[in-house]
Amino acid sequence: MTHFVIITAGGSGLRMGAELPKQFLDLNGEPILRRTVDLFLSLPFEVHVIIAMNRIHSQWWMNYCHKKDFFFPHYETPGGITRFHSVKTALKYITPGSITAVHDGVRPLVTERQIIRLYELAEQYPAVIPALGLTDSIRVDEGNGYKITDRSKYIAIQTPQVFQSDVLLDSYKSDYTESFTDDASVVEAKGYPLYFCSGEKYNIKITTPEDLSAARCLFGREILNPDLSFNSLVK
Amino acid sequence: MTHFVIITAGGSGLRMGAELPKQFLDLNGEPILRRTVDLFLSLPFEVHVIIAMNRIHSQWWMNYCHKKDFFFPHYETPGGITRFHSVKTALKYITPGSITAVHDGVRPLVTERQIIRLYELAEQYPAVIPALGLTDSIRVDEGNGYKITDRSKYIAIQTPQVFQSDVLLDSYKSDYTESFTDDASVVEAKGYPLYFCSGEKYNIKITTPEDLSAARCLFGREILNPDLSFNSLVK
Repeated sequence: MTHFVIITAGGSGLRMGAELPKQFLDLNGEPILRRTVDLFLSLPFEVHVIIAMNRIHSQWWMNYCHKKDFFFPHYETPGGITRFHSVKTALKYITPGSITAVHDGVRPLVTERQIIRLYELAEQYPAVIPALGLTDSIRVDEGNGYKITDRSKYIAIQTPQVFQSDVLLDSYKSDYTESFTDDASVVEAKGYPLYFCSGEKYNIKITTPEDLSAARCLFGREILNPDLSFNSLVK
Repeated sequence: MTHFVIITAGGSGLRMGAELPKQFLDLNGEPILRRTVDLFLSLPFEVHVIIAMNRIHSQWWMNYCHKKDFFFPHYETPGGITRFHSVKTALKYITPGSITAVHDGVRPLVTERQIIRLYELAEQYPAVIPALGLTDSIRVDEGNGYKITDRSKYIAIQTPQVFQSDVLLDSYKSDYTESFTDDASVVEAKGYPLYFCSGEKYNIKITTPEDLSAARCLFGREILNPDLSFNSLVK
């Protein structure tokens, strides 16, 4: 089985208040994006890496790779206007009959064990989506202030989302709509079923300085990752 | 102004798979509950601490306090059947005209700066509730599978929740209903307005082994706590 990963690295980093886009900020000696790529390069099987990066950032990344002798068989795609367009462009590198993960470049804390598990599940299910129940109480504003809602009805969605490539290729033939917030939503709109499985609570998406600071503490540390069943996490 | 904190420590620890209730598990050399209490004892002003603890656990805690010479002016209340009943019992120690925080015993990572800010806000507002917008996409199951919902409508609620004590005392005269999931909900039901302000993303509630492991990495580390306005976090 051939394995691909599309790593989305299109962010501009505005929320970080930094000059560099957030995926290039330092995580204990290397850029966040390098840490994320390394996750997939260190698996016990080969994964073809495709980075979906905005063209205006690729010069920085190429300079970095050159300086570090970090050459690996990957492709870059010009970043699209939206995540949807970035992924759609990246799909031209995908071989039919394979398995493709799509992962946020700013989620460098997902474990190797989790990535392997998701790739394996995608041999059985067309679309494998990691998700977690919510720990805090939540409130929703439907127009008249924040009101309590039953948190047990909700799940938070993570990446990597892993797909049978033919499903992803077929789904991305669709025209873009605003309801496409992630790859799961694109595949679902085409009529394919989603298989939700347990995410990892500390597979955080680095979007604020607080996240980066926490990631610097958590990176490389042994975070327990109990193999909880989906039912124990989501009602 | 007199300041109180009611620290709820009623948990049985079943989700941790541990023999000890989770609030007594080790966090870098001391029980989690001790770390949480210390937060309030190290403020630049005096805070009267009340621990709402189940009677079956108080022997362990008294033994610990004795062994560590950890004596501070606090009260214990027998744990009630629900969080509501625990807090209601603890309220008998509260002086009218004061400010009272209610905080989860298993949230030892809230910063001193945040606690001070919440106490200050409660001099202006009857009920101060820390909250955060959601980072991940979320889905909701209304009976026909998990469907996408607009995450910008939601906030996650944390503690400490800080109240003008008279408001808390009045609100807790109510009879218990199942909709009382936290102190904010009790006060809101009595007709008082809630003031939502920014929570801290890594003020985590330790409920699983993963949380404990992460807390051990994060405890005592300098986590950035930018003073983001509420509007930047919640639509």
